[in-house]
Amino acid sequence: MRVLDKLDARIDTARSLLCVGLDSDYARLPAIFLEEELPQFAFNRAIIDQTLEYAAAYKLNSAFYEAQGVVGWRAMQQTMDYLRQEAPDVFTIIDAKRADIGNTSAQYATAFFDVLGADAITLHPYLGGEALRPFLARHDKAAIILCHTSNPGSGELQDVIVEENGERLPMWRKVARQVARRWNQNENCMLVVGATVPEVLRQIRAEVGAMPLLVPGVGAQGGDLQAALDAGLNADRRGVLINASRSIIFADDPRQEARALREQISKVRETHFK
Amino acid sequence: MRVLDKLDARIDTARSLLCVGLDSDYARLPAIFLEEELPQFAFNRAIIDQTLEYAAAYKLNSAFYEAQGVVGWRAMQQTMDYLRQEAPDVFTIIDAKRADIGNTSAQYATAFFDVLGADAITLHPYLGGEALRPFLARHDKAAIILCHTSNPGSGELQDVIVEENGERLPMWRKVARQVARRWNQNENCMLVVGATVPEVLRQIRAEVGAMPLLVPGVGAQGGDLQAALDAGLNADRRGVLINASRSIIFADDPRQEARALREQISKVRETHFK
Repeated sequence: MRVLDKLDARIDTARSLLCVGLDSDYARLPAIFLEEELPQFAFNRAIIDQTLEYAAAYKLNSAFYEAQGVVGWRAMQQTMDYLRQEAPDVFTIIDAKRADIGNTSAQYATAFFDVLGADAITLHPYLGGEALRPFLARHDKAAIILCHTSNPGSGELQDVIVEENGERLPMWRKVARQVARRWNQNENCMLVVGATVPEVLRQIRAEVGAMPLLVPGVGAQGGDLQAALDAGLNADRRGVLINASRSIIFADDPRQEARALREQISKVRETHFK
Repeated sequence: MRVLDKLDARIDTARSLLCVGLDSDYARLPAIFLEEELPQFAFNRAIIDQTLEYAAAYKLNSAFYEAQGVVGWRAMQQTMDYLRQEAPDVFTIIDAKRADIGNTSAQYATAFFDVLGADAITLHPYLGGEALRPFLARHDKAAIILCHTSNPGSGELQDVIVEENGERLPMWRKVARQVARRWNQNENCMLVVGATVPEVLRQIRAEVGAMPLLVPGVGAQGGDLQAALDAGLNADRRGVLINASRSIIFADDPRQEARALREQISKVRETHFK
């Protein structure tokens, strides 16, 4: 099975495009979890138990674990193990935003695909596709390339105008094009495109065919859900993963929050025609 | 003391521009270390003991530790602790190649600057300076931004021509310019510039004033030492850190290899005039 078929299958099973972001900031964990040996894992387990029914995918933000050193890395490993046991069909992403020269990228691929066992990892494009080959060559895993990010200052380098055979295009479009035309030989690439600028999302969708997009920026960062889905959905009403992190995991009722967001997404999907 | 003054002081003390890269690939460790509880740490300690006299800096490549999971992360922590105890004046870099949106970058800054205690971290530029603020705001720490990397396919995005107020310039030059003019308010920025294309190194030196450059690509990757130093050195014969990893740490005699490379560097420095 193609790795992205796993994603589609889970989207259909859970009737959901929701990706729950486990940005499990230690400083914000409820006190009850701090008594556990691995507080972030205990917290994640509780969140997973409450949201699994509504989630197509989980995304662990590795920074929040690395900030706790060895204990955090253990929590990340235990969380991945728990997901694999409880829901082997759920799509797992580690939002690690890595990329290095080839021999080093191979080590990162081992760390995230094999040791931690994720289905997918997020990657910086700046070193080019050759450096990312250890990720791209893995038919069984997905490479999610940063294209247009959701932070306020994303345009500083992503919006610069570049020339290509007489054509002028923004850097984010150049990245999307390279990924679609060159890096995606194994049909295992996705792109990160923030929900914050729907028009960019629409243009990237037009550039990359049906490639799935990981879309952060709805919720705490203020992106508009309907506009993002309208811009990003494919004709099969898939092709977008809507990530929500803080707005779900630190909600008073994460289950209710996840369910509500899934339902919001479903409403847009039901009326979507392309 | 400015953090980059620490680097200059060590360069003078050790009369060295050598950065020893601890890319401590588990699969290549001599058998004797595999019996230790933390093989990569035991190996690193031996390398540090043999090379400290000749090193201005050490650079831990985090991928090689992450590939070993929790045990690797512990080895990275122990190595950093050992360096701090044995040689508090040596400049320490973690080559982690991170970067994320602001609240996540803050977590990475905690992980690498505070938990692991590094003086400097390497960073991807693609999200822009705003996202990197948690690193850049740290007066006591250095941010080493990827500019022109040493991998064969680095040009795919780094060499694209961008427009800026009617001027046409390669992306790597745009990155160098942004860092020098905007991101370096705290005088704590450096750039990664591979030794593989000395002409690019020369142009980046011209673009960024006296900003120190971390220069990989000599040794296993084939860059020319003399050409790199001629292109990158400042008038004070500093401003360049020559990184060597595999060629030193897996040499039959790492001490001899480090000493020889320092001497080669010294010869070029002695005859350098600008």
